[in-house]
Amino acid sequence: MKNFADKLIEAVKAKGNAICVGLDPRLDKIPASIVNRALAYTDDDGQHLSPTAAAAKALFDFNKGIIDAVFDLVPVVKPQIAFYEIYGADGIKAYVDTLRYAKSKGLLTIADAKRNDIGTTAEAYAQAFLGEVQIFEGDNEVVMPIFEADSITINPYLGWDGIKPFLEECKKYGKGVFILVKTSNKSSGDLQDLIMQDVDNKGGPGKALYEIVGHLVDSWGADEIGENNYNFVGAVVGATFPEQAKRLREIMPNTIFLVPGYGAQGAGAEDVKPCFNEDGLGAIINNSRGIIFAYEKLGMLPDAYAEAARTAVMEMKKDLEG
Amino acid sequence: MKNFADKLIEAVKAKGNAICVGLDPRLDKIPASIVNRALAYTDDDGQHLSPTAAAAKALFDFNKGIIDAVFDLVPVVKPQIAFYEIYGADGIKAYVDTLRYAKSKGLLTIADAKRNDIGTTAEAYAQAFLGEVQIFEGDNEVVMPIFEADSITINPYLGWDGIKPFLEECKKYGKGVFILVKTSNKSSGDLQDLIMQDVDNKGGPGKALYEIVGHLVDSWGADEIGENNYNFVGAVVGATFPEQAKRLREIMPNTIFLVPGYGAQGAGAEDVKPCFNEDGLGAIINNSRGIIFAYEKLGMLPDAYAEAARTAVMEMKKDLEG
Repeated sequence: MKNFADKLIEAVKAKGNAICVGLDPRLDKIPASIVNRALAYTDDDGQHLSPTAAAAKALFDFNKGIIDAVFDLVPVVKPQIAFYEIYGADGIKAYVDTLRYAKSKGLLTIADAKRNDIGTTAEAYAQAFLGEVQIFEGDNEVVMPIFEADSITINPYLGWDGIKPFLEECKKYGKGVFILVKTSNKSSGDLQDLIMQDVDNKGGPGKALYEIVGHLVDSWGADEIGENNYNFVGAVVGATFPEQAKRLREIMPNTIFLVPGYGAQGAGAEDVKPCFNEDGLGAIINNSRGIIFAYEKLGMLPDAYAEAARTAVMEMKKDLEG
Repeated sequence: MKNFADKLIEAVKAKGNAICVGLDPRLDKIPASIVNRALAYTDDDGQHLSPTAAAAKALFDFNKGIIDAVFDLVPVVKPQIAFYEIYGADGIKAYVDTLRYAKSKGLLTIADAKRNDIGTTAEAYAQAFLGEVQIFEGDNEVVMPIFEADSITINPYLGWDGIKPFLEECKKYGKGVFILVKTSNKSSGDLQDLIMQDVDNKGGPGKALYEIVGHLVDSWGADEIGENNYNFVGAVVGATFPEQAKRLREIMPNTIFLVPGYGAQGAGAEDVKPCFNEDGLGAIINNSRGIIFAYEKLGMLPDAYAEAARTAVMEMKKDLEG
């Protein structure tokens, strides 16, 4: 079973960039032609789709256009599940279809679901997103993958109990996780920047919570290092806080950073630099709106969204190389 | 718009107990008769259901039995979404159906989804679970609820940005949230018990992270106090840590605690006492496996699961009164 970190690092090397395309579609920015096609669609019985099913169809059709336009350029995509779950069960179907279509095009996938729970509950999430699920018993038993993602984002607030079940599926199926450490939003410091008492009793200055979580993530991944010197227990580290990213790069030398905040959230190439190691690896830089809705910024028609996305990826690649 | 805290407190008073039934079904514990009915089910075209759709049908049928057996006894139910999401989109449909059926029986509902995100992403979750969702624009516009839960559990690791969008939907639709403060699992202390430097500069002893989060939750709910003196910004406080619960009760006098850990996780009536205020209110005590799979402990046949659940609720009520 190949270590997920090796799969990701090798995909980054093969594509020559560390760009992650965030598939966060929003109905009000999807071209009218796609929306109208979903609204006009009729099934075998001549019935139109329900509003949520039509919305889900529009989302998936839009995503297909993006994936077709960028799959040969980038190593990985990250659909944010909230933008699908907003349409209930139909939206989740579009989410699963998106993950599968990306996979069929040779892309690695990150399910941005920020799951967090314990015991059998966390096991259920881990099996659904990363592994396989046993349904029924005896003669009726079926074992099948459900979401088939290559990796998932998870939240560390519940401690090791909430992490372990995911790592077990990772080992079994060659999958990965990205644990929230220092998020990109303005108020991420409310908890993450709180300074702890000198927990290691070394007499040095107190560490921030995000640093403690960084140390935990480093230790959780210590036994899972692959051939490329990275492990499958990744970290989410926002590009909007370069100083903290620099500190975290030191704390977690073998951890792959998933870096949100580039583009629409305001961070640029200079800001993401500290997220990389000296080998030029160790981070993937996410861009959602800046790629999938690039047609707006580029002054192109909505129907040219896929072409615009391809242009935006190539521009981002140049920007990161500079 | 009635404050969610008032709805919940009034339901607790009307039913005469603070029991929350956790609807966390597991296929391997559902009676064979229900599973076989789902497997034998054929649609209008004579087709059997897919494995995930059959599993979802079994889950919902099982839940209906539980809800029918307890709706006149308890104020609130809490389905844990992981046990549905494990069957993908079909499972989510069963989740929505479960929330709606509970509502139709006059029960309040807590979507135990532990969502956490920021900005438009958090808005999408908040609208989907608590509010209404606008689908399409102009002549095609539809505005509809998706999950229709009365409240949702959320994770505070991202700070205020991840909380605010939920509170806006709460205000608009009379809904509530329960924010993770001190969870019931063994390793909850990995982060939650870390001691901070003396952040309030009052020269007193340093506070634990869970206490800081408690203060934040108290402040986030301060302007949302209803007629019964509680606000709609609740807290998850595990029954397995009574000392910490006592401290949190002092920090958050007007906050309703959602208390996991009773029963299968080992906590008893004595342990949950500190979660209540002197008025005997302010907490709801969740029990999942101890109620829905009570047939096992009571030595009854699986087919008597609903009757067993009713007996278990009545026993729990007595236990809490004692």
